[in-house]
Amino acid sequence: MSIVMPKGFSAAGVVAGIKKNGRKDLGLLASEVAAQAAGMFTTNVVKAAPVVLDMQRIRSGKCRAVIVNSGNANCCTGEQGMQDAAEMARLVSADMGIEEELVQVASTGVIGEPLKMEALRGAIPGLVASLRPEGIADLAEAIMTTDTVPKIVTRSGKIEERSFTLTGVAKGAGMIRPDMATMLCFVCTDAAIPSGKLQRFLSHSVAASFNRITIDGDTSTNDTVLLLANGLSGAAVESPDDEERFQQLLDETLLALARMLVSDGEGVTKLVEVCVTGAENRKQARRVADTIAHSMLVKTALFGEDANWGRILAAAGRSGAQMELNRTRILFNDVVMFENGSGCGKAVEKKATEVLKTAAYTITVDMGVGTGEASVLTCDLSIDYVKINADYRT
Amino acid sequence: MSIVMPKGFSAAGVVAGIKKNGRKDLGLLASEVAAQAAGMFTTNVVKAAPVVLDMQRIRSGKCRAVIVNSGNANCCTGEQGMQDAAEMARLVSADMGIEEELVQVASTGVIGEPLKMEALRGAIPGLVASLRPEGIADLAEAIMTTDTVPKIVTRSGKIEERSFTLTGVAKGAGMIRPDMATMLCFVCTDAAIPSGKLQRFLSHSVAASFNRITIDGDTSTNDTVLLLANGLSGAAVESPDDEERFQQLLDETLLALARMLVSDGEGVTKLVEVCVTGAENRKQARRVADTIAHSMLVKTALFGEDANWGRILAAAGRSGAQMELNRTRILFNDVVMFENGSGCGKAVEKKATEVLKTAAYTITVDMGVGTGEASVLTCDLSIDYVKINADYRT
Repeated sequence: MSIVMPKGFSAAGVVAGIKKNGRKDLGLLASEVAAQAAGMFTTNVVKAAPVVLDMQRIRSGKCRAVIVNSGNANCCTGEQGMQDAAEMARLVSADMGIEEELVQVASTGVIGEPLKMEALRGAIPGLVASLRPEGIADLAEAIMTTDTVPKIVTRSGKIEERSFTLTGVAKGAGMIRPDMATMLCFVCTDAAIPSGKLQRFLSHSVAASFNRITIDGDTSTNDTVLLLANGLSGAAVESPDDEERFQQLLDETLLALARMLVSDGEGVTKLVEVCVTGAENRKQARRVADTIAHSMLVKTALFGEDANWGRILAAAGRSGAQMELNRTRILFNDVVMFENGSGCGKAVEKKATEVLKTAAYTITVDMGVGTGEASVLTCDLSIDYVKINADYRT
Repeated sequence: MSIVMPKGFSAAGVVAGIKKNGRKDLGLLASEVAAQAAGMFTTNVVKAAPVVLDMQRIRSGKCRAVIVNSGNANCCTGEQGMQDAAEMARLVSADMGIEEELVQVASTGVIGEPLKMEALRGAIPGLVASLRPEGIADLAEAIMTTDTVPKIVTRSGKIEERSFTLTGVAKGAGMIRPDMATMLCFVCTDAAIPSGKLQRFLSHSVAASFNRITIDGDTSTNDTVLLLANGLSGAAVESPDDEERFQQLLDETLLALARMLVSDGEGVTKLVEVCVTGAENRKQARRVADTIAHSMLVKTALFGEDANWGRILAAAGRSGAQMELNRTRILFNDVVMFENGSGCGKAVEKKATEVLKTAAYTITVDMGVGTGEASVLTCDLSIDYVKINADYRT
């Protein structure tokens, strides 16, 4: 799919020298005019300096540019960290000739080390100079940490014959869990939407995407999702129909990015949707789905392509949700593995193993006690996950 | 340490053919006379057949024998599973000439497959015939699943010049988490204690041992701890002093077994005590300790011998406990890694790395906001953990 940028947005990504491996590590997203802005941030009590800054600035509902570095999270860096985050924004504002308060900042990478400000100071002029619509690909690259591929999604729609575009970039790939998925995501659109409405759209889409994915159950200190709408397409999201259409496109965009995040999770080889139906209520359904999606024993079995429904049942059983074993059913795609209190035998297990060999599938647990439903996207736990996170030395 | 059996207890372990690898898989623990008995069982809603049976029988407060198999959990096996568990007890009672209701049953292994009853029927006579005090070593072996070493602990004490002995065996090694740690544990003593008091002693010791260890955060369907006291030493636990002494010995026995479980956890290379001090209250301290102890990012860093205090801080931050970054301190043994809102620098990190290279150490997180304390025993997450649980095919 070719990438289209919304009107009036440009981006850039360069090598500033923060990452040790010489890859792109500094990115910029900018709008020609002040855009309406909405944001969502980590729920972790420990918040990185740029998150603290952004949470203050987003209150204005406006944004011109987002500066972001990878390789260093600027977290647990004390007062110096706050000054550094503010300076990043100031350098961009000075160079672009825009208001300092309209620059948002994001960082991702190692916690607890001071930012290499010299490197940033040296790189920002070149970064600003290279802003262009096609630069979105460089931005997507510059925000990667342990991601193996850049993640960009574009969707477009029409309101009263005026086309508008939504383009988003995101990065994972560890410390991912709901509330909220740990990552950076920046989405821009040339539709015209006031910031209050934009924030509601964003909350809805995040709940249906980043807040129901999990890789390793950890919540980072730097989670940031920003949505900028500069209105330059002339398409104004006003009527209920327009709103529904925009919401749907935003949902699609974030869900597509969320799926890319899980697929590219650290060491991931399987993308698995855990659907829970027939629970006492929605909350209990979510609890069962979360417990299964986070279970290390389930996740290692997925990696081993082992149709071990016992581990799924055991996870559901400890979730705290109401459960009656005789009413519980477990399916891998449409293969029923467990019902009426016992497993469905070796022949079925063989069919299930075929499902498990595919790269993406669904596990359904029907609790049979109510109408509550929920689903969560998860992945397997592989040897490579451990290698990546142990900083494995051979 | 040489193993001493309490008076009047004997044990046995044989190869019945349930495990595919030809190892011992059927064990028996027996008392010459009916012993007072106490038990604690899994909190998982999904309970294996033998657990359901034991929970009924333990109400009598009496037990003569415990029959246990490995290689098959007899869980999610429907009505047949209940019949099989009852038959295991009946076969033992017939062969030993004891009351059927005084036989407890335990199983561990794969979920969802029917027990090979033919194999059990054939093996039980030989098992009963081989009962002897030294058989405790065979029992410890017969209950092993992915454990790499058998686990036996003996302690002895004196009450009014009468010696008594406490001997326990346990098995792990996956599906271990608090409430309660997933394993089997059988402890016998020749002290004289009524079953009501015995149950209180057991609850206290389990809270301080098996309920504060974690390997992978999963709770099994088969957890069982049984404590039998036959009184044959003549040492009667009656006065408050006696009670304190017995409680202490039982605490020591179960804590020693719990530490052995974690050390021998699947793929474990590090035994780490997570101590949280200065929390708002005990409950919050426990929540912080649990979140750190279960974090996959923390556990992979421990495996990598990486002094990554940022991950510890991030886990504490998402635990939901009250936290003030500037008051939080993190220590590896006595090396302070983080205080006053930032890390303590490279020199300290080098010292911490020395600590991380050892096989057992303590991580202390001082929250600095109250007096709540808690500690949890955890381990690293290694490549071998994944290999073992993925049933890895090379």
